[in-house]
Amino acid sequence: MTLLKSWVESANSADTLFPLNNLPYGVFSTPDLAPRCGVAIGDMIFDVHRAEIDGFIDLGTSLFAAPSWNAVMGHSPRIWDALRTRLMELLAEGAATMPDTLVAQADAVMHMPFNVAEFTDFYAGKHHATNVGTMFRGPDNALPPNWLHIPIGYNGRASTVVVSGTDIVRPNGQTKAPDAQMPSFGPCKRLDIELEMGAIVGGANTMGDPVSVQQADDMIFGYVLLNDWSARDIQAWEYQPLGPFQAKAFATSISPWIVTKAALDPFRTSTPAREKDLLPHLHEPGPMLYDIDLEVTMAPAGQPETTIARTNYNQMYYSAAQQLAHHATSGCAMNTGDLIGSGTISGPEKSQRGSLLELTWGGKEPMTLDSGEIRSFIEDGDTLTLRGAALGDGYKIGFGMCSGTIQPARKFPK
Amino acid sequence: MTLLKSWVESANSADTLFPLNNLPYGVFSTPDLAPRCGVAIGDMIFDVHRAEIDGFIDLGTSLFAAPSWNAVMGHSPRIWDALRTRLMELLAEGAATMPDTLVAQADAVMHMPFNVAEFTDFYAGKHHATNVGTMFRGPDNALPPNWLHIPIGYNGRASTVVVSGTDIVRPNGQTKAPDAQMPSFGPCKRLDIELEMGAIVGGANTMGDPVSVQQADDMIFGYVLLNDWSARDIQAWEYQPLGPFQAKAFATSISPWIVTKAALDPFRTSTPAREKDLLPHLHEPGPMLYDIDLEVTMAPAGQPETTIARTNYNQMYYSAAQQLAHHATSGCAMNTGDLIGSGTISGPEKSQRGSLLELTWGGKEPMTLDSGEIRSFIEDGDTLTLRGAALGDGYKIGFGMCSGTIQPARKFPK
Repeated sequence: MTLLKSWVESANSADTLFPLNNLPYGVFSTPDLAPRCGVAIGDMIFDVHRAEIDGFIDLGTSLFAAPSWNAVMGHSPRIWDALRTRLMELLAEGAATMPDTLVAQADAVMHMPFNVAEFTDFYAGKHHATNVGTMFRGPDNALPPNWLHIPIGYNGRASTVVVSGTDIVRPNGQTKAPDAQMPSFGPCKRLDIELEMGAIVGGANTMGDPVSVQQADDMIFGYVLLNDWSARDIQAWEYQPLGPFQAKAFATSISPWIVTKAALDPFRTSTPAREKDLLPHLHEPGPMLYDIDLEVTMAPAGQPETTIARTNYNQMYYSAAQQLAHHATSGCAMNTGDLIGSGTISGPEKSQRGSLLELTWGGKEPMTLDSGEIRSFIEDGDTLTLRGAALGDGYKIGFGMCSGTIQPARKFPK
Repeated sequence: MTLLKSWVESANSADTLFPLNNLPYGVFSTPDLAPRCGVAIGDMIFDVHRAEIDGFIDLGTSLFAAPSWNAVMGHSPRIWDALRTRLMELLAEGAATMPDTLVAQADAVMHMPFNVAEFTDFYAGKHHATNVGTMFRGPDNALPPNWLHIPIGYNGRASTVVVSGTDIVRPNGQTKAPDAQMPSFGPCKRLDIELEMGAIVGGANTMGDPVSVQQADDMIFGYVLLNDWSARDIQAWEYQPLGPFQAKAFATSISPWIVTKAALDPFRTSTPAREKDLLPHLHEPGPMLYDIDLEVTMAPAGQPETTIARTNYNQMYYSAAQQLAHHATSGCAMNTGDLIGSGTISGPEKSQRGSLLELTWGGKEPMTLDSGEIRSFIEDGDTLTLRGAALGDGYKIGFGMCSGTIQPARKFPK
């Protein structure tokens, strides 16, 4: 696969995140246009809502009446493929140009690309789990006994999944210092990120019916970048015995463009060799992880960004397909719009760690940013940004940014 | 408060679960009527969808266009009160009878009374937490250090909340015997119930804004019985470190009638005396728990029911209002349709335990049912039923049944 050419000139650069090969799906608005579905192409957005109304997209069913991609996601992979094929035709070099159907990304505001049904977050990066486990339980008990056998996950909160650019309010919560008699209540003091990928579920299974790993891969519609904002001090006090709760519930940010499984297909890669064989129900019939370069930057208010980590999605121990199959083992019904967080993506090197908890080793090794400021965790006014792209032969499949700026904690009501 | 009389004669018995004092909200259908909202009165259902169309209910906004109570729940408590007042007028003794607007409960099928937005389950019964903690971690570490300071909860799965009468498929899952080298995969062998109450959230808060305990109580619309079906063997293997996942994801049953906060008001009671003072953000400004008698029965296929536990909601250490306030401490957005499970309700006596895990002490003390059959956990074909009612002066505020029959596990797909 090489760069596919479009009549949208900005899509033909080797540096663009959004060549014709990509065609990711988002929801945008401008001062003149109410929120609607669009497709990124170069530095423009192709207004598919308008293209459908004008008759250029007609798959026998209305796809873009609402400002969300859930209608498309709820259709079969046959419709997913037909839509991508039609978009390729419409936007390819040599096709009739449609300048009235293009909006500059610079003029648009992005919205949530889909309505999140439920959000589940996993813990499937071995370097991350080992790092965190070492800090919390010591090196001998770093990985829990189940970790090599099932992708460990927990249900998160869908109501606070927000699109990149949404400010994040520092959470309040209850914490307890190890030497304190009683807990105390107030703003989080150890606010963190988790660099993740999010897999978006299109297909559904019937309650009671498990799915295979292949069926699970077929059910996945696409991927986004995902920042699982985390309050480490709240988490440490609350998480035993039933897992993280308010420490994760206040916000999860995602990038605005859903990169389809089809666009990522050339970048499929296998999960790593196993220390212990997985049971058959979790075997991957083919490569279901992806080679996607990822990075995190941090910028104090008014300061430039410093890159604080670079890693790759191919570091994960379990693919999203394995996670989704595990999620349905019990007969749990998975639905269109479910969002599956990969778990924090850390590599083996210190510079490849996907959370401040790991990068500063629990705050014991603070970072110095390019601006000279020192950080152990996130301070008010800081902006954290994730970026990601799969690197092809002379082209990129980019995700755009997943960014959020921290606002001070709210006063607690009397 | 004593029994309020209705022109629906069956509502005037001291034994009915649904006197005029109650007026719980459900969704029903008959062979002639598509699913629609209704109100239980005696052994009948008052068809509020029809009453609204006929102009007998007109609160200035359409409430019953859809077969769910979410539209009502999403309105303010002023509308909640106005609706209840109007229903009391229409159904009171002396009001014009409306026989065409009544359907016999015996002729109706009940459906989910509302669309569940998200489901959160708590662990707020001290007897239950102590019993389970003793079994899992020994008597000295039974209650985790945080337990007396915050209501411990975890996010559950909304997609598998089903109405009473829905069959429950035995889940598959991965388990590991303590002496086994490797885990194995197959149908759950330790299938259990958890007797709980469910609080249904009507009002919403804005993401980032915490709520007080009083605000949380004001946001609660009503209550149902809730059975948090649990796969104990799957849970034991998966729950460290991030909490229960597939062990709880396969099914949660609720009773079909939402009993409103207004109907339960005479039965408000305080949470118990505290060993350790709660921090101010969790103080109850008034009684927010309820005195509701509860029981569980078990019936093997073709056999009569045996009552296996009797307890009371007043045993809980935290009220639903405290749980909801805690849920929003971080700024987590709570929405119309959120469902909050109380946690298993066990009393201090063995006969008051709300799970088989506790009743049979992890299977070590099997129960003998009235039919002579012996049970440690639930077998295929068994029906488990919860019942509950608040007992007033010559009247009851009943919840109806929360029942489910176990079907064999499905074959896992190749």
